[in-house]
Amino acid sequence: MEEITLEDIPDVTLGAGVLATGGGGEPFVPRLMAEEALRRYGPVPLVRAADLDPEGLLLPLAVIGAPTAFAEKFFNGGEALTALRALERHVGRKGVGVMPVEVGGGSTLLPIAAAAELGLPLVDADTMRRAFPRGELTHFNLAGIPASPIVLVDPAGNTVIVEAENNVMAERLARAATTEMGMIAVGTLYPVTARQAAEFAIDGSLTYCAEIGRRVRAVQEGAGYGELLDFTGGRLVFTGKIVDLDRRTVDGWARGTITFEDLDGTDRVLRIDFQNENLVATEDGLPIVTVPDLITLLDVETGTPLTTETLAYGQRLHVLACPAHPRWHEPDGIELAGPRSFGYDLDYVPFGGAR
Amino acid sequence: MEEITLEDIPDVTLGAGVLATGGGGEPFVPRLMAEEALRRYGPVPLVRAADLDPEGLLLPLAVIGAPTAFAEKFFNGGEALTALRALERHVGRKGVGVMPVEVGGGSTLLPIAAAAELGLPLVDADTMRRAFPRGELTHFNLAGIPASPIVLVDPAGNTVIVEAENNVMAERLARAATTEMGMIAVGTLYPVTARQAAEFAIDGSLTYCAEIGRRVRAVQEGAGYGELLDFTGGRLVFTGKIVDLDRRTVDGWARGTITFEDLDGTDRVLRIDFQNENLVATEDGLPIVTVPDLITLLDVETGTPLTTETLAYGQRLHVLACPAHPRWHEPDGIELAGPRSFGYDLDYVPFGGAR
Repeated sequence: MEEITLEDIPDVTLGAGVLATGGGGEPFVPRLMAEEALRRYGPVPLVRAADLDPEGLLLPLAVIGAPTAFAEKFFNGGEALTALRALERHVGRKGVGVMPVEVGGGSTLLPIAAAAELGLPLVDADTMRRAFPRGELTHFNLAGIPASPIVLVDPAGNTVIVEAENNVMAERLARAATTEMGMIAVGTLYPVTARQAAEFAIDGSLTYCAEIGRRVRAVQEGAGYGELLDFTGGRLVFTGKIVDLDRRTVDGWARGTITFEDLDGTDRVLRIDFQNENLVATEDGLPIVTVPDLITLLDVETGTPLTTETLAYGQRLHVLACPAHPRWHEPDGIELAGPRSFGYDLDYVPFGGAR
Repeated sequence: MEEITLEDIPDVTLGAGVLATGGGGEPFVPRLMAEEALRRYGPVPLVRAADLDPEGLLLPLAVIGAPTAFAEKFFNGGEALTALRALERHVGRKGVGVMPVEVGGGSTLLPIAAAAELGLPLVDADTMRRAFPRGELTHFNLAGIPASPIVLVDPAGNTVIVEAENNVMAERLARAATTEMGMIAVGTLYPVTARQAAEFAIDGSLTYCAEIGRRVRAVQEGAGYGELLDFTGGRLVFTGKIVDLDRRTVDGWARGTITFEDLDGTDRVLRIDFQNENLVATEDGLPIVTVPDLITLLDVETGTPLTTETLAYGQRLHVLACPAHPRWHEPDGIELAGPRSFGYDLDYVPFGGAR
């Protein structure tokens, strides 16, 4: 893709739904913001980091907060501009491009709106190639790049700048601020140069997201799952009905478990543990898919990817598992983003071939 | 006073103990820091805000966090410099002086150390003329001056800059960051010009603090309470023994109640409610002293002012009540810093004449 147009938004949204793995932030409002901005300012140029001034400052943007808050509160559309200006002033350099921190959920769509409004190109890359619940779970962090300075802006205009000594503390300070902001903020983190992004970001993630969306749309139009599974290297590991749903907000996290019974009348049972994103799928007591690989729930009738907050008892869903970007499968990737990093006493379960 | 020397520190510390009203941050480590800095760099010039360049930037400093944390963790001595440099960079101006936010406890002594280390004069003023548990309880806030940008620096070097839309939100964001910092940080808030400080800060507060300290020392040397009470306009409203002490840490606050029985064998009972600082004194069910007036506990034997965390069952104490600075007694002062502001369903109880 060379630009993102209004016509691309449905596919990007569907793809972001898959890569959100149940979290990523409700895309409804960021989608409206992206559509409105593209309507007003025209298409956003999609560029590779390598094509920008190597010393130019990038603005990696994400929606930060709790999915439950995004359903009740709204961005005002000015947060990204406030964040960019605060970051530029703080580091003393001008931004040359916007980039999503994660291609999952609303965090994929918000940077599109911001790029259009700021008149900056959008870098076709991200740092996760999925959504993750914590800001230190990035390829930038694997490369030793500081997340600081982080700039957070809430819809009321409150701004917090975090300069932490390490990326775990940066995440904790950012999360504490977001909690006081009502669990909804726009954040810039990892203010990298285009050179750093060219070396360490995941190239082509927005195109990858749109390509997934195109194949989900094909599913919705009756084409079956073949192309989606071929493209992602994924598998439908279970098809079942929700028979139990335990969902609670703990310390600003949407945490819980989803239990499925097989639709075919066998006694197979699948359980998914989530913390904003789906993290571990366990069949009959044995873990079959774990982070960093992707676990996404798709409505059996419509093919639509679902966030955890829209789940309900009795829903019939496919459980789609896709391998993470191969960099995540290296030992330091597993250490950073594997199940133990989320508090599970569980080794990573290798899954399928990676694309 | 025209300068603060090493020899002034004992009196300043004693005065800060009275004005701390039970909180203000354990002064032990800030006192050592002030003494070490004065030894190394010599006396700190004490100036009036009106004598500085009116457009010069001041650095109002405070210790932020929980008194209980200060007993276990230590500042590294570099926090104020990091904060000053971050603030100067953030606002794009050079600092011309240091000022305490509050003349109570460690927050009085830390700015002395900082002024010596930074080679800046210390402004003989503060914004409370006592200690208060929240950063919005200042004369600057009464004057409509924003607390933002706030810069917080912890002993590990983590830095957070808060730009809030109002001073209540500024306090909440600063407190959330301080909690993640382990409840110990150096903060700069209300970055005013010398002109603003000359108009709205409380002139002479450090001298006032040292003068109180001198009179407490006289008490300790056997001179009785006459001069201290004359100077402050205060009264010893109770002398008793602690018969009950309920002290707990809630959301980063040291909260609780202290109950005294009269030493004279009558059945008079006094209760003090505190939230870091002592807030309300109630005798036999009737409130007799409330914020913004000062309630300080002094050891009957030694005259030493005590912080709430050093209290113990059976201690014999004088309860000293002193009127707040008269600006606090105006309607907006009572509204901001009276008992209702701390959640008590209680009107301010007028107390004595103010100095």
